[in-house]
Amino acid sequence: MKAVVYKEPFSVAVENVPDPQILHPNDAIVRITSSCICGSDLHMYEGRTAAEPGIVFGHENMGVIEEVGPAVKDRKVGDRVVMPFNVACGFCKNCLGGYTGFCTTVNPGFAGGAYGYVAMGPWVGGQAEYLQVPFADFNCLSLPAGTEHEADFSLLADIFPTGYHGAELAGVRPGESVAVFGAGPVGLMAAYSSLIRGAAEVYVVDHVGERLAKAEEIGGIPINYDEGDPVQQIKDRRGTGVDKGIDAVGYQATKAGSSAVGGEQDEVPNIVLNQLIDLVNPTGALGIPGLYVPSDPGGVDENASRGALSINFGRLFEKGLSLGTGQCNVKQYNSYLRDMIISGRAAPSFVVSHEIPLDDAPEAYTKFDRREDGYTKVILHP
Amino acid sequence: MKAVVYKEPFSVAVENVPDPQILHPNDAIVRITSSCICGSDLHMYEGRTAAEPGIVFGHENMGVIEEVGPAVKDRKVGDRVVMPFNVACGFCKNCLGGYTGFCTTVNPGFAGGAYGYVAMGPWVGGQAEYLQVPFADFNCLSLPAGTEHEADFSLLADIFPTGYHGAELAGVRPGESVAVFGAGPVGLMAAYSSLIRGAAEVYVVDHVGERLAKAEEIGGIPINYDEGDPVQQIKDRRGTGVDKGIDAVGYQATKAGSSAVGGEQDEVPNIVLNQLIDLVNPTGALGIPGLYVPSDPGGVDENASRGALSINFGRLFEKGLSLGTGQCNVKQYNSYLRDMIISGRAAPSFVVSHEIPLDDAPEAYTKFDRREDGYTKVILHP
Amino acid sequence: MKAVVYKEPFSVAVENVPDPQILHPNDAIVRITSSCICGSDLHMYEGRTAAEPGIVFGHENMGVIEEVGPAVKDRKVGDRVVMPFNVACGFCKNCLGGYTGFCTTVNPGFAGGAYGYVAMGPWVGGQAEYLQVPFADFNCLSLPAGTEHEADFSLLADIFPTGYHGAELAGVRPGESVAVFGAGPVGLMAAYSSLIRGAAEVYVVDHVGERLAKAEEIGGIPINYDEGDPVQQIKDRRGTGVDKGIDAVGYQATKAGSSAVGGEQDEVPNIVLNQLIDLVNPTGALGIPGLYVPSDPGGVDENASRGALSINFGRLFEKGLSLGTGQCNVKQYNSYLRDMIISGRAAPSFVVSHEIPLDDAPEAYTKFDRREDGYTKVILHP
Amino acid sequence: MKAVVYKEPFSVAVENVPDPQILHPNDAIVRITSSCICGSDLHMYEGRTAAEPGIVFGHENMGVIEEVGPAVKDRKVGDRVVMPFNVACGFCKNCLGGYTGFCTTVNPGFAGGAYGYVAMGPWVGGQAEYLQVPFADFNCLSLPAGTEHEADFSLLADIFPTGYHGAELAGVRPGESVAVFGAGPVGLMAAYSSLIRGAAEVYVVDHVGERLAKAEEIGGIPINYDEGDPVQQIKDRRGTGVDKGIDAVGYQATKAGSSAVGGEQDEVPNIVLNQLIDLVNPTGALGIPGLYVPSDPGGVDENASRGALSINFGRLFEKGLSLGTGQCNVKQYNSYLRDMIISGRAAPSFVVSHEIPLDDAPEAYTKFDRREDGYTKVILHP
Repeated sequence: MKAVVYKEPFSVAVENVPDPQILHPNDAIVRITSSCICGSDLHMYEGRTAAEPGIVFGHENMGVIEEVGPAVKDRKVGDRVVMPFNVACGFCKNCLGGYTGFCTTVNPGFAGGAYGYVAMGPWVGGQAEYLQVPFADFNCLSLPAGTEHEADFSLLADIFPTGYHGAELAGVRPGESVAVFGAGPVGLMAAYSSLIRGAAEVYVVDHVGERLAKAEEIGGIPINYDEGDPVQQIKDRRGTGVDKGIDAVGYQATKAGSSAVGGEQDEVPNIVLNQLIDLVNPTGALGIPGLYVPSDPGGVDENASRGALSINFGRLFEKGLSLGTGQCNVKQYNSYLRDMIISGRAAPSFVVSHEIPLDDAPEAYTKFDRREDGYTKVILHP
Repeated sequence: MKAVVYKEPFSVAVENVPDPQILHPNDAIVRITSSCICGSDLHMYEGRTAAEPGIVFGHENMGVIEEVGPAVKDRKVGDRVVMPFNVACGFCKNCLGGYTGFCTTVNPGFAGGAYGYVAMGPWVGGQAEYLQVPFADFNCLSLPAGTEHEADFSLLADIFPTGYHGAELAGVRPGESVAVFGAGPVGLMAAYSSLIRGAAEVYVVDHVGERLAKAEEIGGIPINYDEGDPVQQIKDRRGTGVDKGIDAVGYQATKAGSSAVGGEQDEVPNIVLNQLIDLVNPTGALGIPGLYVPSDPGGVDENASRGALSINFGRLFEKGLSLGTGQCNVKQYNSYLRDMIISGRAAPSFVVSHEIPLDDAPEAYTKFDRREDGYTKVILHP
Repeated sequence: MKAVVYKEPFSVAVENVPDPQILHPNDAIVRITSSCICGSDLHMYEGRTAAEPGIVFGHENMGVIEEVGPAVKDRKVGDRVVMPFNVACGFCKNCLGGYTGFCTTVNPGFAGGAYGYVAMGPWVGGQAEYLQVPFADFNCLSLPAGTEHEADFSLLADIFPTGYHGAELAGVRPGESVAVFGAGPVGLMAAYSSLIRGAAEVYVVDHVGERLAKAEEIGGIPINYDEGDPVQQIKDRRGTGVDKGIDAVGYQATKAGSSAVGGEQDEVPNIVLNQLIDLVNPTGALGIPGLYVPSDPGGVDENASRGALSINFGRLFEKGLSLGTGQCNVKQYNSYLRDMIISGRAAPSFVVSHEIPLDDAPEAYTKFDRREDGYTKVILHP
Repeated sequence: MKAVVYKEPFSVAVENVPDPQILHPNDAIVRITSSCICGSDLHMYEGRTAAEPGIVFGHENMGVIEEVGPAVKDRKVGDRVVMPFNVACGFCKNCLGGYTGFCTTVNPGFAGGAYGYVAMGPWVGGQAEYLQVPFADFNCLSLPAGTEHEADFSLLADIFPTGYHGAELAGVRPGESVAVFGAGPVGLMAAYSSLIRGAAEVYVVDHVGERLAKAEEIGGIPINYDEGDPVQQIKDRRGTGVDKGIDAVGYQATKAGSSAVGGEQDEVPNIVLNQLIDLVNPTGALGIPGLYVPSDPGGVDENASRGALSINFGRLFEKGLSLGTGQCNVKQYNSYLRDMIISGRAAPSFVVSHEIPLDDAPEAYTKFDRREDGYTKVILHP
């Protein structure tokens, strides 16, 4: 089958790779209809990880079940399904607690597995024609048959739940004020989710005009950090800070005035965390869907390279803030978010900028990495 | 009346000061029967804060109501009461949310007030014969008349709830494994509270023999960090990390081999936080009753002086840990903990090392600061 | 001053009564600008309670502070404020737990007080020119100065929070399916609040066309119970039951085909509860903002008269349902709902049918009780 | 193999039945070492259910894995395991929510399955030499190898978690007062669990001397309802009601003065529920692990036969009580309770009265049903 294969930094190719097989009785094979490119794929693409050439990318996968192993009970051939980016077993201690992003079964020696991602286990990515899905009853979320809402549903694999997770980690409740740093796809989903949860005011901080415009369209209040300290801008508008903060930027945060593309020279990896500590009111909470990593070959200095950041911890403590972190446990939310899409209460695909054939993936990676031509969120259709 | 007055670093005196008055219709005057010296009083005593000479110390206060203002409704002259160290109004947004440690009414311009503490508002301390208590209906917790359980009840002002708060911030639940760093009074109360909440295993890390012995007496598992990396010691015993961690040490954390008294030269202010990040299992939580401060005149370096600590944030995120901080909201817990004392289910006074007359306070401060003669927790009786 | 005075069943009059006074240092006097008539006022009006002639009605009160007692700290003369219908002290055990609807201070011997309501304490109602408000710092919610959003804000006294409370008692979360029984003002507010909280589908059951039309306008799915068993109608549409149910009808529930006005002959007081037990899926929850009473002089039979209802408890248990009841603790929600109104995210006044001068109250009571001329929710402006 | 087979009301026999087989790749076969007789087995034994002759009893099962199907991943031959009485899949909506007692996969058309129980699916009971366990990775809880704590661990299948569930449904928290109605095995476990969770006072209501003595031994306060209205007894002692109530009696509740064995003539199925509504303070909660059933062939009247009970709902509402019901979701608690047993913090086997060979089951059923010779909780060892 054809698949998107990582060749070397800044290079992927669509190549033939072996078809996936049923390797375990609980496996299913899914014929991919949509697979998205994620901002975190760019970390590998840019050589900012230990990913080796040959890896097949793709952890945001959706399609139709083509074959099931003999132990699969509820999922059937022909079911339209979307898979959480996190591969999970459903029965380890973390899965039982709902922490399916930290499954200890699927990636021995580590808590958490994913398709097509460095260090996340043996699971081949889904930017390809077919995908092997383990523990299929657990990992395949059923969707209504047909083709309706294809783009909306494909976002259930990662960014819609991940944005929602940010709001959950921050404990966003009706009537609260929220600041979301970052208006990339995850940030927009975090803002959108905060509004779904009833937030009274949602500030969205970025410096890319198109992103801020999207934030405003969905009901957010755009704050351009190139136009002044975003903390002060928000405090000036409100006369106080906010109840909750969400960091949808992560360790590649950049300072004001840096280019839209970013670049290591502009990175200040702790800037958003300390801005949130400054901005969120005492007793508030920070949701950090991130991403932060314990090892970054391209870190701006030795500390950043090992994920050690200088945090204003005295201020954090004085304010009595709490803080939730970590990758999204997609299965905690995906069925609920699916039902919102079906009933028309949510339509997250407003963030999708491009839907293209699988074969165009190399060009899409190049342009997305450079933020050219409005590349924001790309769905590949094999 | 007589009161313990701060004179200069390492010096307090018992002096005559003006009697407190009813200044507001909701005030009460309490005749103090017990007032404890807190480890955080030593921060002021040692000159590690901006406290000015003349301040009357004492935020852990208990006694009998001597007089009430005309607006006081439920509390009566003669009631035996204990006051949370945090002064609170009961009607600001934070108080309404239960965050009485972050009251915005009692200390204008700041969230949080306390008796006898630098920068915590105009409230005179209770290491004295009498105490002015504002919002008396809200701030006075009623106790059974008489003298029974005097020491146990006096600990309801601060350290029993504060230790309990550590367990609450970490979300300690029945059957979990917990590591408490620090076996001073707050650490012991955190361990005790974790056991009260049903923890299966509670490790207590310190390097003072008497403290570790106390921890073991109440059912904890002592870990001496002078005998090796405490993280590794616990992982070796369990074969894995722990579910929850509590930092009852704070910014004056010291490295292995340092003296019991501490001293700036031995301080490594981020050591406990990073040890907890290393020790707590993925999906776990850290409760940080602290103390960390945003400004420390005696900090080991420039960063420490402004409360900026190097935190292994990449690892924290990878593990999906959450983290709760801040001073205890005593009123959330004190009536429940009181009822446990009354019914005989809790007896926290095992941490009390000395009960002495108010006049002996100067000597007690000296010895407590030097950890001489077993000074651990002192109750002053005016 | 002028006030709405209860004369006898089905009769109120606007009469002169003594002006309220500052009786306690924590009191405030509020000049009423809006006071709503509540469906529960009709219980008294119809003689279905023990209310004695002479009582001044009005527990949904809003206005401007005219005078404050000497102990009032934060509220000032001239502040625009709205008061929860429940009078509360802020410092009793129930208030501290957030259960301000069950204050044990303001209505001796009972848990819960209200303005202008039988058996709810000595507090005179606010369908009048002025109102005495005890514990003013606690009970007065500050509003932006001016006259904007007057109708929206006035609903913060009761029905918006009470509807929201129904959703809270049922634990409505994003993506869930909800059935609200009753599309009176509280039912509509419960549906509206469920949607605010992110519910995917909200069914609203009633048999009055105008009400069902309102439900549909705000995004609900109307179900007319005169057109068939509402449980079956919903199950037929969904192929299953719902996640959560809200009973906004209470003990005066009527069977299909009864007149819009109701009447004791049509009452089946347990019908909605048993329908919800039938409709809500296993593991679901029922929120019951009610109203149910332990003593109903007009009950359909002896059991109903003492509030004993035949409940399908075996089925409830088999399904593992949970159930939350009781009057709303307005203070838990009112500041958050206010902020949603200010930011434009909520506008509950769509339920208001009439805004009239205080003097027209007698006619309004008559018509509202008979559901004539579209009387649904009336605001009186003194 | 040998198994306990139901013959007719009041009669079981140990007979040869076919050995269980691996029927699905996720199955395991467990060699039973301990299987308990449950009070709910007596419902079938007494003919109070629709159970047909031939059913093999036994839903509280423990043993060693003898064989695993080809899809089983983590559980191995030789593992010592205990199985929740509820059979569950781990991937249906209810299981994902933690409601494994309401699995929709294992018992088609119903929410919830169990071993050896009428209407709970095709799963053969474990009062036998071997047991087929579906979804073995999910349903088998691993235990330390060996024979230590055999009785304690066997109670993890049902009554320890079920008692704990009562405390969870009631939301028992440290420092609260609790009343448990019923001091049978589940009631004792509910009291024990409430104490584990830090309750300040736990009243235990029964009228069997031995049971009340056990309750007192573990720290409860015994209340004998033959000596007077238990509600009044508790109110007299406390001067008020309690924070939380647990109903561990269920639909076969009997009035004061009835014999220890019970009997339909003494049953008042709603008595405990209404006593709890009377006893629990406003804003409190009731946990109802039950059991209540929607169909009882031996009900005292027509209403009882269909599980309809007269509940003082007006009072319940006036007090704002909440109420949680349903069978225990054992998997939510069993690993935590296991860890408490391992660490020595819990030893629930104090309720076990008899450990006997499988062959003695018929006599044990007879005596347990008659409460002869102290039969309270019996473990069968095949």
